[in-house]
Amino acid sequence: MARILLNIRYLGHAFCGWQKQPNGLPTVQAALETAVSTIAGHQVEVIAAGRTDRGVHALNLTAHFDTTSQRSLNAWVAGVNTHLPPDIAVLSAQEVPSDFHARFNACRREYRYVLSNAPVRPVILKGRVGWTFVPVSIEKMQQAAQLLLGEQDFSSFRSSECQAKSPVKTMYSVTIFAKNDFICFDFAASGFLHHQVRNMVGALLYVGSGKITQDDFAQVIAAKNRQKAPPTFMADGLYLTKVGYPPEWGIVEQPTPKWFFGE
Amino acid sequence: MARILLNIRYLGHAFCGWQKQPNGLPTVQAALETAVSTIAGHQVEVIAAGRTDRGVHALNLTAHFDTTSQRSLNAWVAGVNTHLPPDIAVLSAQEVPSDFHARFNACRREYRYVLSNAPVRPVILKGRVGWTFVPVSIEKMQQAAQLLLGEQDFSSFRSSECQAKSPVKTMYSVTIFAKNDFICFDFAASGFLHHQVRNMVGALLYVGSGKITQDDFAQVIAAKNRQKAPPTFMADGLYLTKVGYPPEWGIVEQPTPKWFFGE
Repeated sequence: MARILLNIRYLGHAFCGWQKQPNGLPTVQAALETAVSTIAGHQVEVIAAGRTDRGVHALNLTAHFDTTSQRSLNAWVAGVNTHLPPDIAVLSAQEVPSDFHARFNACRREYRYVLSNAPVRPVILKGRVGWTFVPVSIEKMQQAAQLLLGEQDFSSFRSSECQAKSPVKTMYSVTIFAKNDFICFDFAASGFLHHQVRNMVGALLYVGSGKITQDDFAQVIAAKNRQKAPPTFMADGLYLTKVGYPPEWGIVEQPTPKWFFGE
Repeated sequence: MARILLNIRYLGHAFCGWQKQPNGLPTVQAALETAVSTIAGHQVEVIAAGRTDRGVHALNLTAHFDTTSQRSLNAWVAGVNTHLPPDIAVLSAQEVPSDFHARFNACRREYRYVLSNAPVRPVILKGRVGWTFVPVSIEKMQQAAQLLLGEQDFSSFRSSECQAKSPVKTMYSVTIFAKNDFICFDFAASGFLHHQVRNMVGALLYVGSGKITQDDFAQVIAAKNRQKAPPTFMADGLYLTKVGYPPEWGIVEQPTPKWFFGE
């Protein structure tokens, strides 16, 4: 018996999120389990570091599975890829200890929201970046973003469908910067609630455009009430970029691709 | 009567090329004429600098039309955009002299092919970049590319469907370089034949992977026969990037976007 960790990348559009659905709707987990099971020659369950929401993309999501089959690591990459739809690819595979768990051992998740802030909508990167034509101030958003740091109750940014046990998460960093023609919002936290990043970006854009003040933003957080917060922003520009593990597990991190909108 | 020049950008997938089709198939020209006619309030014919092939993208294609209606330049941008499908956008508009012609006055066309040369297929930029997992040598391709320069008969790279009067075009420059995780092929010429860039890229990749030698490549060109040349490469990574006009026309050039895969 071997436990294998995969690094996977996917475009979210074609899927109803990560998690398998009882009604057979297309999900990343279902597609991956079908492909891995084909290579393994037996039924496999794949467990991810987190469940991305519908329409959200992933650059480097980690997921593990157990197999009784002996295969080269390349078979878990190139072999599995031949059985996946074009919207998903396995980037790399490594063997991990049998007590490693992709979800429970993850201590850090990172997301990036890529926004086009231009008069004309994005065409070539349609679906890959979010868009608002309303001019926004990066400086105002950077200031407000400081209020998101630390251990907090993020109920104001939690969708009603969220299944997390607690709305309390620790935000390690929020970085907002202009890069080429885009604005990038980078979030790193212990974990994220359902729709949390899209809801935080929606609220930050209200600050950036002057629709609400920084004080209003502080009150939005303090309200711990989704009804008091600005609307959810579109999923198009949202990427899970990295999952972090304590170094003793020896998990090989995949680098963020250089082309990722201007790195 | 005013003659207006538009700069337009589109994703090629959704269209059967630029040119209107008698059977009502979706084309860029048809979509644009419908949108411009709506804003103009009368039927408009839109004439582009060139007819991009099926599946080819454009960053900055120029096209002109005549109108008897008085509209602000912004109406020809923002107004037209509200009537276009999400795969096309007008970037800018300017009034031009009535004897200016988007196609006949164009003296230079530029294309870029963006290639991912990696073991795993592109996922996030699926359809936006071409892909080959066979390692290729940029240096070998750069050397072979020199043979494409100058005024030549490009029949070996001309598809059988090409409607151009002559297979002779002048290639001003070919530049091949690595940029972030991609290989870019930049071509500038007086004009291009049907499928010419995809056919040249296909042949250059044969040189780059060692499938044919530089001498073979020279013979491919000299044969002036499509049957003697390597196959057409996929359209996915091909962009019309720029159309050049003599400076006396005062055409405002749109800059290539900075995010264009790592500028």
